[in-house]
Amino acid sequence: MDFNNHLLDGKKGIVFGALNNQSIAWKVAEKVTAEGARIVLTNTPLSLRLGTVSQLADETGSLLVPADATSVADLEKLVDAAMEHFGGPVDFVLHAVGMSQNLRKGRPYEDVNYEFFLKTLDVSALSFHKLLQTLYKKDAMSEWGSVVTLTYIAADRVMPGYNDMADAKAVLQAITRNFGYIYGRKRHVRVNAVSQSPTPTTAGQGIAGMEGMLQYADNCSPLGNATAEDCAALVTTLFSDLTRKVTMQTIYNDGGFSSVLPNPLA
Amino acid sequence: MDFNNHLLDGKKGIVFGALNNQSIAWKVAEKVTAEGARIVLTNTPLSLRLGTVSQLADETGSLLVPADATSVADLEKLVDAAMEHFGGPVDFVLHAVGMSQNLRKGRPYEDVNYEFFLKTLDVSALSFHKLLQTLYKKDAMSEWGSVVTLTYIAADRVMPGYNDMADAKAVLQAITRNFGYIYGRKRHVRVNAVSQSPTPTTAGQGIAGMEGMLQYADNCSPLGNATAEDCAALVTTLFSDLTRKVTMQTIYNDGGFSSVLPNPLA
Amino acid sequence: MDFNNHLLDGKKGIVFGALNNQSIAWKVAEKVTAEGARIVLTNTPLSLRLGTVSQLADETGSLLVPADATSVADLEKLVDAAMEHFGGPVDFVLHAVGMSQNLRKGRPYEDVNYEFFLKTLDVSALSFHKLLQTLYKKDAMSEWGSVVTLTYIAADRVMPGYNDMADAKAVLQAITRNFGYIYGRKRHVRVNAVSQSPTPTTAGQGIAGMEGMLQYADNCSPLGNATAEDCAALVTTLFSDLTRKVTMQTIYNDGGFSSVLPNPLA
Amino acid sequence: MDFNNHLLDGKKGIVFGALNNQSIAWKVAEKVTAEGARIVLTNTPLSLRLGTVSQLADETGSLLVPADATSVADLEKLVDAAMEHFGGPVDFVLHAVGMSQNLRKGRPYEDVNYEFFLKTLDVSALSFHKLLQTLYKKDAMSEWGSVVTLTYIAADRVMPGYNDMADAKAVLQAITRNFGYIYGRKRHVRVNAVSQSPTPTTAGQGIAGMEGMLQYADNCSPLGNATAEDCAALVTTLFSDLTRKVTMQTIYNDGGFSSVLPNPLA
Repeated sequence: MDFNNHLLDGKKGIVFGALNNQSIAWKVAEKVTAEGARIVLTNTPLSLRLGTVSQLADETGSLLVPADATSVADLEKLVDAAMEHFGGPVDFVLHAVGMSQNLRKGRPYEDVNYEFFLKTLDVSALSFHKLLQTLYKKDAMSEWGSVVTLTYIAADRVMPGYNDMADAKAVLQAITRNFGYIYGRKRHVRVNAVSQSPTPTTAGQGIAGMEGMLQYADNCSPLGNATAEDCAALVTTLFSDLTRKVTMQTIYNDGGFSSVLPNPLA
Repeated sequence: MDFNNHLLDGKKGIVFGALNNQSIAWKVAEKVTAEGARIVLTNTPLSLRLGTVSQLADETGSLLVPADATSVADLEKLVDAAMEHFGGPVDFVLHAVGMSQNLRKGRPYEDVNYEFFLKTLDVSALSFHKLLQTLYKKDAMSEWGSVVTLTYIAADRVMPGYNDMADAKAVLQAITRNFGYIYGRKRHVRVNAVSQSPTPTTAGQGIAGMEGMLQYADNCSPLGNATAEDCAALVTTLFSDLTRKVTMQTIYNDGGFSSVLPNPLA
Repeated sequence: MDFNNHLLDGKKGIVFGALNNQSIAWKVAEKVTAEGARIVLTNTPLSLRLGTVSQLADETGSLLVPADATSVADLEKLVDAAMEHFGGPVDFVLHAVGMSQNLRKGRPYEDVNYEFFLKTLDVSALSFHKLLQTLYKKDAMSEWGSVVTLTYIAADRVMPGYNDMADAKAVLQAITRNFGYIYGRKRHVRVNAVSQSPTPTTAGQGIAGMEGMLQYADNCSPLGNATAEDCAALVTTLFSDLTRKVTMQTIYNDGGFSSVLPNPLA
Repeated sequence: MDFNNHLLDGKKGIVFGALNNQSIAWKVAEKVTAEGARIVLTNTPLSLRLGTVSQLADETGSLLVPADATSVADLEKLVDAAMEHFGGPVDFVLHAVGMSQNLRKGRPYEDVNYEFFLKTLDVSALSFHKLLQTLYKKDAMSEWGSVVTLTYIAADRVMPGYNDMADAKAVLQAITRNFGYIYGRKRHVRVNAVSQSPTPTTAGQGIAGMEGMLQYADNCSPLGNATAEDCAALVTTLFSDLTRKVTMQTIYNDGGFSSVLPNPLA
């Protein structure tokens, strides 16, 4: 991670969702700062206590600002703090936020709790809209800025066991398109989702049968699963000026998995 | 509507969402009963007061049961009432339920109210999950039964002005797939969504610029917009035994609109 | 197959591709005539010798006209014969035509013969364009007529072993859209593709590993594979007046297979 | 174009399709060499006479090898020449090849010439398979090498006037998936298509109404059309090591156009 193409020299960003060094967001934070960017790190107060993000802040020389991504008030404070810290708007944002109580508590999809379900949607999808709306209202993104969220192929086709997170990711991809349209017209800000292979993060470990699924997806994917580092590298290209006309897309970083049918040879 | 192919002879179903004779659900109720089915009609108590559904119940000889589709308790009572009325499980259900306060109150997509947004998702998408989960738990659908919900192409691509309903329809289509998988494995019950042309219903009239959009879509569609009657006819085929292996799909009933790019000739 | 909903009373059509009573086209011919239609049957002279189509012509009271679907001259004669036979234009056409020498001769996809490849495209895809162009030029379809071709999900995602037929089916679906646009605008003629489960026809038996693939697909599909009879029933709805605004679509008749990801539980 | 992120230092590639300094392939050649790569340029002998590619070869210090991309013999010579020139396998290839006589000669889609149609498919799609098969048989790509072809959204939805090129692009995208699967499994070689905005190249100028279409697409796209330079930048990321798990994809470089529905506000 010490190689530097200077792809993000001078750029400033916000990175949500790093918990520990297994997190995709952690790898993104390391990669984008290695590529020359300065960042503000954020996560919920609870995650900051459970995880080791302050270590990442030290390592990357970043400001750490606690925020609950479902709270518009928190998001406003975060964006204000980032703009003050950088002395102006940000160039990129990574949104890596998701949680399902139904999944955690083992409620199967045919017996979900609807308060949990709404919470899943609020945390995992509406938080992205809240973030975009807050950035938009405060005019906190530079022209041609880039926002990326993380999604999963279960948004598009059925992966038994992924539960209401599949529905949340479907909304998330819709918000990517719908807010991307508005922010593109207004400020040329790009909004994209990266649909990532199943990744052995702490969040992923909460899903029953995750280990078997990881192996199976790795086997089905012609190139094998994309790792957290692979994701960080791709996200870096999306934050760079090399992809300025790519927007409102879901980009599959999955070794080819999304293009393969169930088949007995896989 | 008096022609009868006997496509649904002996079948029993539940039809949500008829308000008045402009409603798609109204046309479905007329068509499926003309084709030999018996039905239970349902809508919210408020809609029953505002609309003319009791007239439809009389016309089609149907039982009318008030229910709020966001209330699991109401859905349970409705399903119990239908099963008692028919002396057994139902063969088909139409879900035509949707509402956005953000749309109604003219809150643009970059300035939505998030309580409204969650309510949009609850009414327009989770109500479908609640319905399916209730049917599933009560084993209230016959083998090879068929459930249809109504969606709109804005779930897939951006239609400015459709607001958070676009996100709700994206979840709705995800629920169609995800619950369809489970119900298919369990009881061979089919679950599909029909993506319908913009239709001049009372609900549609609440959307600003609806009239212009209807005309434009009609012009862009090689066959013109699908009407409420066209939708009722298609839904009838989906409730019949002629489409027994079609499930988890979004079927476009739109005169070809969904397959056409924005182009200066349209 | 003796049940009759009179869905196609008075309609006239052309059915390509019946070889023997395993053929999907055979089941379509039986079903549409049972539903009240009159048809002209056609296949290549070679297929007519190898198969038992004359028996189907007798059974259904149909005219049998040999034609090579890659020959515009043959198609013109066929359409002329049908129009003369019926005294006017036809209401529906089934195109069920496909062949790959690379598949038959076991040339793997990374070692194809390019003359075979072009032939695969000509037989399996361009034949559909030739048919549509011939019908169009002769104004041989009634207003709101319906044309259906058969495709396979390998057009959309990778199914190892399906070889250049996968590419041919991708063009076929593109032609469905592109000619459907033109014919829709001109005569309200609908053009759709049905993406069918793998089906144990004589054609399918030429594919190595077909048996295993059939079993696997059947297992992965929540409702099991769609049979040839299931396909005939669905095609009947597409030829009927109940689906008049459905056009330029690929409709999946596959028990849900196309909506399921590769997963270890399938 | 003199900025250098060293993204392709030490990499070697082949670039098809540069004609003059309007060509996308020309911009790619300039960009990838600026990023540190060495390349072999190729085009048909006719194009080499009509265009100014030798100037580009001089400018970028590249070897120029004439080849007809529809001729396997020519492709074999080209690949041999490149491997000899570089002393080993190549790391990336750009395929930018397409031509339709039906388009050029103004034959509308409902009156195409079928020899032209097969030629369109051969030049614009099978040439890509021939290239991949030749590279594969000669084991001429490095592990984790990257191949990119250029496509257009008319492959996915109808753009009247694009004629049989729309069908050819649909096959091209299928070949991208189908060969990408095989080459990924064998050598971890990635194969992707970039779906580019309409671009004012010499090739594009042959299309009737191209100018109006460019303006319209530019207006519909939230970020405006992607230019040839934008395409070159994106392709550079796909040739780099930053996107190693992205394969078998069509990536839309179009300012958001592909995600927008026809709508009266566009």
